Amino acid sequence: MANMKAAIPKGTRDFNPKQMGRRNYIFDTLKKVFKKYGYQEIQTPTMENLDTLTGKYGDEGDQLIFKVLNSGDYLAKVGTALADLKSQALSPKIAEKALRYDLTVPFARYVVMHQNEISLPFKRFQIQPVWRADRPQRGRYREFYQCDVDVVGSASLLNEAEFICIYDEALSNLGLTDFSIKINNRKILTGISDVLGKPESIIDLTVAIDKLDKIGFDGVQTELLSKGFNTSDIEQLKPIILLSGNNASKLESLKLILATSPTGLQGINEIYTVLNYLTNFTLQNAKVELDLSLARGLNYYTGCIFEVKTHQATMGSIGGGGRYDNLTEMFGQAGLTGVGISFGADRIYDVLDELNLFSASAEQSTQVLICVLGQYEETYSLSVLNHLRKQNIAAELYPFGTKIKKQMQYANDKNIPYAIIVGNEEMKTGKLTFKNMLTGQQQMMSAIEIEKHLLTQS
Amino acid sequence: MANMKAAIPKGTRDFNPKQMGRRNYIFDTLKKVFKKYGYQEIQTPTMENLDTLTGKYGDEGDQLIFKVLNSGDYLAKVGTALADLKSQALSPKIAEKALRYDLTVPFARYVVMHQNEISLPFKRFQIQPVWRADRPQRGRYREFYQCDVDVVGSASLLNEAEFICIYDEALSNLGLTDFSIKINNRKILTGISDVLGKPESIIDLTVAIDKLDKIGFDGVQTELLSKGFNTSDIEQLKPIILLSGNNASKLESLKLILATSPTGLQGINEIYTVLNYLTNFTLQNAKVELDLSLARGLNYYTGCIFEVKTHQATMGSIGGGGRYDNLTEMFGQAGLTGVGISFGADRIYDVLDELNLFSASAEQSTQVLICVLGQYEETYSLSVLNHLRKQNIAAELYPFGTKIKKQMQYANDKNIPYAIIVGNEEMKTGKLTFKNMLTGQQQMMSAIEIEKHLLTQS
Repeated sequence: MANMKAAIPKGTRDFNPKQMGRRNYIFDTLKKVFKKYGYQEIQTPTMENLDTLTGKYGDEGDQLIFKVLNSGDYLAKVGTALADLKSQALSPKIAEKALRYDLTVPFARYVVMHQNEISLPFKRFQIQPVWRADRPQRGRYREFYQCDVDVVGSASLLNEAEFICIYDEALSNLGLTDFSIKINNRKILTGISDVLGKPESIIDLTVAIDKLDKIGFDGVQTELLSKGFNTSDIEQLKPIILLSGNNASKLESLKLILATSPTGLQGINEIYTVLNYLTNFTLQNAKVELDLSLARGLNYYTGCIFEVKTHQATMGSIGGGGRYDNLTEMFGQAGLTGVGISFGADRIYDVLDELNLFSASAEQSTQVLICVLGQYEETYSLSVLNHLRKQNIAAELYPFGTKIKKQMQYANDKNIPYAIIVGNEEMKTGKLTFKNMLTGQQQMMSAIEIEKHLLTQS
Repeated sequence: MANMKAAIPKGTRDFNPKQMGRRNYIFDTLKKVFKKYGYQEIQTPTMENLDTLTGKYGDEGDQLIFKVLNSGDYLAKVGTALADLKSQALSPKIAEKALRYDLTVPFARYVVMHQNEISLPFKRFQIQPVWRADRPQRGRYREFYQCDVDVVGSASLLNEAEFICIYDEALSNLGLTDFSIKINNRKILTGISDVLGKPESIIDLTVAIDKLDKIGFDGVQTELLSKGFNTSDIEQLKPIILLSGNNASKLESLKLILATSPTGLQGINEIYTVLNYLTNFTLQNAKVELDLSLARGLNYYTGCIFEVKTHQATMGSIGGGGRYDNLTEMFGQAGLTGVGISFGADRIYDVLDELNLFSASAEQSTQVLICVLGQYEETYSLSVLNHLRKQNIAAELYPFGTKIKKQMQYANDKNIPYAIIVGNEEMKTGKLTFKNMLTGQQQMMSAIEIEKHLLTQS
């Protein structure tokens, strides 16, 4: 075995214990809320058949799928035309499998494949990594976690209302106090293009107004003009997407504006129903805001659309989702409606970090380190160690033979809050030195006293 | 998007909510014990550079590594010789990355890459999937989880003793009551080949005696004869590897047999030290047995070797490990000693399943389902739902519009233990029908009474 450089592929990450503690804290907090609302976890394989994924994410998406080389003599099956093939044509012949690109397509595949064992409505959450051959940059990785919550087989808008509750409860439990859940409805967007008399241009329209946040109304106007809208369309559109006031007054105005579009009115009704459901639940911190410029993934969503932003940090959306009516059609099962949301775990991590919302306990595992100088002290201390662990106190003994100073450094590096130092004097008197690593304070205590103290801390 | 069959690659698995509940129960139980002993979690990327993995698992292992096709026009870099290349020669030119094959090599890579931020001894655990292009068969998958616990940078045999405690505590917490932790030492095996006068044949010797369990002593004898051992060697060997009695008497006999091998005596001493450490800890269920035929992964281990078997089910080893002195040498960092163990999570799953050791609570998420017939009942019930969740009771309301019988079926399918049925009568009297789904018993209770009852159950 030759020596080689220790490195990992670009765009991928190792997670150290501190990062894992924080990541697990986020995932555990989310999972607890998902379960409270009746969602259950599933996992799907890292590799899917390539043809399960191809064609689902557009041409650009297809280029970003990581393909896994067939095993064995994969060239044997390619035949003699090898020399004439280009990469893109060769890939499906030598790679039948690919890495999961998102959690949505595998979920659709799962629902169809297991339809006979699934009880509808099927409420599932899934937290797993996905892979994309994107150019890595700050905050964009080739391997990252997605965290999706979906229900299929229920048209009830109670689900939409509960997703708003889930966002509120999960993000509040993580310590966020100021965030908005923006809501819109694909049918309202359809209604707007209906009243403009341009139902065929709904995609151009929504792609443009989706950018309102970034490019302002002037930018939206320029884009619309380039897409064949005229100034009178834009005059008509401006008051609609710039509607201000609270949700109720926006909806009242919209009802008049979209009066001639049955689809638009249905969208308004759906928003009313969701907001009405919400009056039965108490939200902790979320502001629910109707945002008519919200359009994310329009071709996909068919009803309500959500997006979450916090005002406590400069960060894009930390979550989003919506209702889709034809998720499983691609796998031959039509007519199954679904609605779901996702949490942007990496962005949430960065926000909590910036706001110092990670508690020290998320990062520590060991509660107390026993430090000894020699073999006798070590032997003496083993029963202390054994007792602490019997009380479910996470404890370590640093094996003898290392200077106390270095052992203290180890405790500090590992965020261990307490140390017990056992020396000659301690063995004679039975009183051990008990040190608070944070304050530096130390006192002499018996093993029993230390145990009691630690139990009250944990 | 054309319709396609919903299928997954052979040798891979979906995990449904029930399986996930059980798997998480196993992993959570193990993690809790690992943390109690001071081990911290890390994760490494799914993809490693291909040259990080190649050459670490032998020629056969190299064939089983899943390689990931380079992105973009990967053939452009291959050059004109493409037509002349065979699969094996082409692979490294078109695939620079590969899927993790085990957790050991990535751990070694991690330790070297992050050596400046790691505090020694570094105690880590890691629970992640690995991939092998093996022929799938019953119990053998192409994607499966490994669960490794290792410490590097500490030569103390206290670590070995604590690993035995970890096995004992983790498997006992999972409900196993009858299992053995077999222990041996590579230095004892070296000592045996020393006293046979065949130090150069240690690998042949240990590969043969490692099979004692499977092929019996006659089989071992046949294999040794074919490898150049003579009958007098075998005469000398037989009483050694068939040594019976308790650990103390085996060690006493061994001391005499290996008296002329300093390495052998050192191995005996190490076993003594580990057993001596163990007298300070109370094992719950594990039997610790010196087994001189235990040799697993000999080329790898340099000190103590472990293997765990349960007597409650017919199953191979459910765990194993040992000390290795040169793990990180391949990445240029020599002299770092390590010792570690792993848990066979899939096998443990099968054992617990066979013994009915999974509790129902591992499989359920929702505690109570509220069933309503119409919209009025739904609206009435939302405040009940809200209150239950405020008490952290996992609760669902089945949206109105479905027959109660189907709602009951949903509760059963999802292992929901209680149901609340809200009808006309219930809304009038304020007493709800509260049903125990297991016994079928139902009674009329107020929302407050139900809440109290559920809180005492959880």
